[in-house]
Amino acid sequence: MKIGILGAGQLGRMLALAGYPLGHSFVFFDQAPGESTAGLGTTHIGQFTDQQALATFAKACDVVTYEFENVPCETAHFLSTKVPVYPPPQALEVSQDRIVEKTFLQNLGIATPRFEAASSETELRNACQKLGLPCIAKTRRFGYDGKGQARISDLAEIPAVWKTLGGTPLIIEGFVQFSRELSVIAARDVHGEIAIYPLAQNEHIQGILHRSEIPAPELSPTLRQEAQAIATKVLEKLSYVGVLAIELFQVGDHLLANEMAPRVHNSGHATIDGMVTSQFENHIRAISGMSLGSTEARARSVMYNLVGTTPDPKELSIIPDAKIHLYGKSPRSGRKLGHVTLLNPSESTETALSTKVTPKS
Amino acid sequence: MKIGILGAGQLGRMLALAGYPLGHSFVFFDQAPGESTAGLGTTHIGQFTDQQALATFAKACDVVTYEFENVPCETAHFLSTKVPVYPPPQALEVSQDRIVEKTFLQNLGIATPRFEAASSETELRNACQKLGLPCIAKTRRFGYDGKGQARISDLAEIPAVWKTLGGTPLIIEGFVQFSRELSVIAARDVHGEIAIYPLAQNEHIQGILHRSEIPAPELSPTLRQEAQAIATKVLEKLSYVGVLAIELFQVGDHLLANEMAPRVHNSGHATIDGMVTSQFENHIRAISGMSLGSTEARARSVMYNLVGTTPDPKELSIIPDAKIHLYGKSPRSGRKLGHVTLLNPSESTETALSTKVTPKS
Repeated sequence: MKIGILGAGQLGRMLALAGYPLGHSFVFFDQAPGESTAGLGTTHIGQFTDQQALATFAKACDVVTYEFENVPCETAHFLSTKVPVYPPPQALEVSQDRIVEKTFLQNLGIATPRFEAASSETELRNACQKLGLPCIAKTRRFGYDGKGQARISDLAEIPAVWKTLGGTPLIIEGFVQFSRELSVIAARDVHGEIAIYPLAQNEHIQGILHRSEIPAPELSPTLRQEAQAIATKVLEKLSYVGVLAIELFQVGDHLLANEMAPRVHNSGHATIDGMVTSQFENHIRAISGMSLGSTEARARSVMYNLVGTTPDPKELSIIPDAKIHLYGKSPRSGRKLGHVTLLNPSESTETALSTKVTPKS
Repeated sequence: MKIGILGAGQLGRMLALAGYPLGHSFVFFDQAPGESTAGLGTTHIGQFTDQQALATFAKACDVVTYEFENVPCETAHFLSTKVPVYPPPQALEVSQDRIVEKTFLQNLGIATPRFEAASSETELRNACQKLGLPCIAKTRRFGYDGKGQARISDLAEIPAVWKTLGGTPLIIEGFVQFSRELSVIAARDVHGEIAIYPLAQNEHIQGILHRSEIPAPELSPTLRQEAQAIATKVLEKLSYVGVLAIELFQVGDHLLANEMAPRVHNSGHATIDGMVTSQFENHIRAISGMSLGSTEARARSVMYNLVGTTPDPKELSIIPDAKIHLYGKSPRSGRKLGHVTLLNPSESTETALSTKVTPKS
């Protein structure tokens, strides 16, 4: 099949690398040429609002998917009149607005952090008083990697926060004293079959994912079942096709759903080397009408992101059982340039990698 | 690095798919566009004797390798005056002529089947009488997948065989009563470090590889060490850089080296899913100056070739733990179109696959 991908970043790159062995070819659509997908297929350049460019793109594809959740919903809807679009555009609508998203989750009986909407400085103040301090203010739309967020510890900070976040509609979330951050990545195929990966345990530095371990260590059966139930409810409610990620907070022996991404997810990159079938392959399997592959873990897999700079690949190649994934991107502060996954690492192996890749604070 | 590959077939495809995650990009050179490498890099079209085309190609590359052993030696030598070429062109010289190859192996103290050269019908008759019947006549050059070979069971067949094989210089090999066919795949990096994969056990149908299992079952330590010694001798003698394959016959508890390929090899395809580092990745690591990755087996891996036709990928996707690799090639009788690797398959899983892909006899 000719698979079209909206977006030409590293997720598109890894989708293509997983999809070629299944016999597919790839066409990308983005507003500028992507370094990550250079060489891996044709790229159509255009605005996401340019219906003529989108129509030309649709003609080159048997199916269309997307690698980031900020694709305009109208773009996905327009394309879906020409060619199948997976995951369903409704998943974009739900995940693009943090208020809609958390409301959607709560309506499914899924616990989330407490939240309030605020569209003015006064509403922001009211929300803070209602939720108690500290709390977290986030833009309702277009946040990622910790961008568009601010912690409020004192009511005096409110005017500055309102200004910093751009005076746009906000969600204010009650502070959650969680013991760790987890994520569940799951896939649903066109027949409605669901496959769920072992949970990932995630650590962030400066709002950017730093380390993920799959399977998350010391996970109780209760938590595992709770995560599986959350993923299943969301996938089924949306008649989802493809891979979905849900970020979770562990509080005691329960989970709160924080946000969802209707796409392959950074916390699932360790599935490439660590699981029987990667999240990228299962996304492609799902949207191309194949059955899903096994999500079983083949190893304890620990992934580190390469952010801002990349160590010399020759040095990385010396680390035992280190699987190297570079995205072909130019270095820039805060930019995800690659990741390395360690298979069943000893403590010293993990230290050898983490000292090379951990951002200096 | 920009890696140039001579040849645009499925081996080039799988080298590129393994090389992108290491941060490399790919340029191919072939006499016609390759279906297998379409979308995976730029292809330069030209004759292997066209020095102008080769010079242009060399300018686009930081290093050059090849995916088939019938690249003219002059081509490799010419390119090596412009850009590093790995494996060394001498490996091509040795492996392109079956007499040179077996003489090279014997000079290293490596046992091979008995053989004689024959450049005329009379010499063919003399060789048959010396070696005894049955014996195997093969063209010295350009044979593959059982092509350019004939078994001689009766001296009366000699005129017909001489004619069928084209009246070209031949090697005549004494018949070997082997218990099984094995292969050893090994890699050597630019620093001289060597990594050797567990042996593969191979089964052919109509001269074409049908099934490979890695690690080869029930292998004695003696055989393993013998194979490792053979591979090491060849790699070191040639100051080799990259992946090399040697086909072996097991006779009792000893090995005869049958032929070698200075490249990634079909009997090593199971390393993609079954080993920590695939043969493709290790070839790219070696020629790009990185250290080699672990060749350890992560699973009992059984590969079946898809020859001539491909089952519906949706049907293949139902088989548990089946890793699908399609090459993007149009179906044609006897053509390798893809392969499927099973991880730790049960008997019933292997039967499910083999009934779909075994050629009707």
